[in-house]
Amino acid sequence: MKFALKILPKPEVLDTQGRAVEGALKEQGFDLTSCRVGKYIVLEVPANDSEQALQKAKLMAEKGLYNPLIENYELEQL
Amino acid sequence: MKFALKILPKPEVLDTQGRAVEGALKEQGFDLTSCRVGKYIVLEVPANDSEQALQKAKLMAEKGLYNPLIENYELEQL
Repeated sequence: MKFALKILPKPEVLDTQGRAVEGALKEQGFDLTSCRVGKYIVLEVPANDSEQALQKAKLMAEKGLYNPLIENYELEQL
Repeated sequence: MKFALKILPKPEVLDTQGRAVEGALKEQGFDLTSCRVGKYIVLEVPANDSEQALQKAKLMAEKGLYNPLIENYELEQL
């Protein structure tokens, strides 16, 4: 069972990578209001039922993949 | 209008970051089949209609945000 974990810096956290990308795009002539850069992690979890797999993926996210101080995450079943 | 750009290394490309994360999770006792790590970029594009905004976001993705040699991308309207 596959899950997509989307991790973004919290809105109140200065996203240096996002600012840099925003600046680079604007320099190329693109018109954009904002840009935030995060991580996209696809986890393949072996499990018999989807509820169990989701719990496993959630645990992986919370025990190591995202930093609750500065990031938010969203988990989506693929 | 907001778009999420999901960028992942192509399946045939060795994903060193993904391998490292997979190894780290397994060391922590997690059971997973595979893990791939990519980028998640949220673009806010000013536009009057959604079709125009989508085209702009697509252009940004293709003209600089992803590397067609080693990556695939997916664009989703948020």
